[in-house]
Amino acid sequence: PGPAAMEPVSAAVSAVLPAGGSGERLGGATPKQFCGLQGRPLVSYAVRAMERVSWISDIIVVVSPENIETMKSIIEKYGHKRVTVVKGGVTRHRSIFNGLKVFAENQSSNRLLQKPEVVIIHDAVRPFVEEEILLKVVTAAKDHGAAGAIRPLVSTVIASGEDGCLDHSLERARYRASEMPQAFLFDIIYQAYQQCTDHDLDYGTECLHLALKYCKTNAKLVEGTADLWKVTYKRDLYAAESIIKDNLSQQICIITDLKEAVAQVGFLLHESLKSQVKVEAISISLSKNDSHLQNIFSGECYNFLCINDKEYATEEIQQLVDMLEKSNIPLLYPVVLILVHLSISENISFSIGLEELTKIKKFAREVKKKNILVYGLLIQCK
Amino acid sequence: PGPAAMEPVSAAVSAVLPAGGSGERLGGATPKQFCGLQGRPLVSYAVRAMERVSWISDIIVVVSPENIETMKSIIEKYGHKRVTVVKGGVTRHRSIFNGLKVFAENQSSNRLLQKPEVVIIHDAVRPFVEEEILLKVVTAAKDHGAAGAIRPLVSTVIASGEDGCLDHSLERARYRASEMPQAFLFDIIYQAYQQCTDHDLDYGTECLHLALKYCKTNAKLVEGTADLWKVTYKRDLYAAESIIKDNLSQQICIITDLKEAVAQVGFLLHESLKSQVKVEAISISLSKNDSHLQNIFSGECYNFLCINDKEYATEEIQQLVDMLEKSNIPLLYPVVLILVHLSISENISFSIGLEELTKIKKFAREVKKKNILVYGLLIQCK
Repeated sequence: PGPAAMEPVSAAVSAVLPAGGSGERLGGATPKQFCGLQGRPLVSYAVRAMERVSWISDIIVVVSPENIETMKSIIEKYGHKRVTVVKGGVTRHRSIFNGLKVFAENQSSNRLLQKPEVVIIHDAVRPFVEEEILLKVVTAAKDHGAAGAIRPLVSTVIASGEDGCLDHSLERARYRASEMPQAFLFDIIYQAYQQCTDHDLDYGTECLHLALKYCKTNAKLVEGTADLWKVTYKRDLYAAESIIKDNLSQQICIITDLKEAVAQVGFLLHESLKSQVKVEAISISLSKNDSHLQNIFSGECYNFLCINDKEYATEEIQQLVDMLEKSNIPLLYPVVLILVHLSISENISFSIGLEELTKIKKFAREVKKKNILVYGLLIQCK
Repeated sequence: PGPAAMEPVSAAVSAVLPAGGSGERLGGATPKQFCGLQGRPLVSYAVRAMERVSWISDIIVVVSPENIETMKSIIEKYGHKRVTVVKGGVTRHRSIFNGLKVFAENQSSNRLLQKPEVVIIHDAVRPFVEEEILLKVVTAAKDHGAAGAIRPLVSTVIASGEDGCLDHSLERARYRASEMPQAFLFDIIYQAYQQCTDHDLDYGTECLHLALKYCKTNAKLVEGTADLWKVTYKRDLYAAESIIKDNLSQQICIITDLKEAVAQVGFLLHESLKSQVKVEAISISLSKNDSHLQNIFSGECYNFLCINDKEYATEEIQQLVDMLEKSNIPLLYPVVLILVHLSISENISFSIGLEELTKIKKFAREVKKKNILVYGLLIQCK
């Protein structure tokens, strides 16, 4: 269900993203949260996943001291909003604690951050978190004090004896893998961190465990989707990149103007493409604010084919680009916009058409900065 | 270490590969073991991984009844040897038991299979198993009766109470994920399967557990590599495919004849490529059996660039293709062989060169069936 179908969140919510890991399991010099997927660092995807949820107020990204400048430049480059960068500790728990302190002690020098009622904790290396699961853990945390996403175990878990031999194996159905996101009443998780021992801070990793141990809070467990998995090994980077590419190519929107001959081309294209890809075809006047188009813009469509038969329809195309930009679609992934000029009438010469393409080329160079990739195609039918 | 560095195995060893899963976690009609990676079904990679280990005698692939013909056609198509297809049961344990019965009861109608001293059990959906780990589990199984590969846990494991809330979390360092391959003294695992209950056969999954419960055998646990993971979700297929592509493009071998001018081209190419890819450059007479080239053939090189200045060096190239074929390299992945004819002297006209390329084209069509992709390039320097 889209955001519109969800209950509103009746609590102040913020998020802490620990991103301090060294990525040693990945094998490579760059910590995994800074590895590029389609050119954009992994952490930027996770930040954006939080950012596009309107009811999350502040996003605290905790990075190790040597990566603070890198993180700040990522925020700058990708235009992230509502993000505060905080210096991490030497372990995961110490980093999360540092992130929480920002709300409790108002240490942030930039501005005062309001203490949230509920805080989400999510890994920077889990890029595909959806609003739906965030809402579920936040709602459950409001009721139970703590909540976390879980997944079925993929492998049987075993305990080994001191001799390196099998001691016992766990009955797989009774256990679950604890994943992220997790959410907590702020006061509970902060109290747990304040009370916990150095041993906990140095060797523990599980926030749900701290809430149970120090605040007697049994977290509500929420079944999550498969794509919440943690990018851990190099193969996970491959997988994440392929998932992103898949998302980008799943849907296309064909926009034609209202002229019958042009709309007919859109209809035929729709017919011939629909067996291979999800297609929407609409005929509208781009200069009017169309609610159907707005709906498409609020979805997950990254490919647009715009067909018209006017001589370089500057205004309309500018309109479309503005709408795309406002929609925030190009913030995360590049949007492809193919402009097809269909010259059905015979009164336009080929050289005029070429002139138009040159204009589109110039226009494309400008909007590329906005992560919108424009291509022009001129089709002359006689 | 390569196979040459390993101790020989002093036991009769065979393998059982359960491949009966429905792949419901993958989301898709094709069970994951039959999904194509670079066009080849996943199960074929796992079979090949066993097949290239010389000391594994028989490979039993257990598939569900409706997939027996599919599996047989895969064996036919990819020329798998030493493989017997066995009809699976309704659960994983029942399928493995069926696979083991073939040795114990000589049920196979095709031929008599010798009962092995040690049997390897490995999943058809773990394609990247290396000889080294197979040797480790087999050796450990000979000593301890049972052995299995393990990996550190990626997520914390938790137990949930009946109210769907956290009951307790396990200390991550004390536990391991049980992976494959596993190996057993045949008599131990077969006895375990004969004694175990219907409940075990229907709801259990872990062979190590059966060996412990029914034969008091505490399996030796062997730390495995990260690439032993089980292809479970669609993202794992993406990851596996990327790993294969990576392997294919990691290394190139440049082969030139002994003429100084040609060898010099090979040397310069080596210099300019070495920063991007692992390169070997050798100058040899292809008609002689060169031990250096044999070494390369026993490695993981899938790309060959063969430079000469003779008019269509038919014999030498045929020689090279024969050596490649014998090396078994093209069995698993396609081998790319680029033939560069360098015509340095001025006494060959361009039309003769083109004639040569036509010959190479015909030759390429023939050897394509052997999974060797030949390309010809003609370079004339005056």
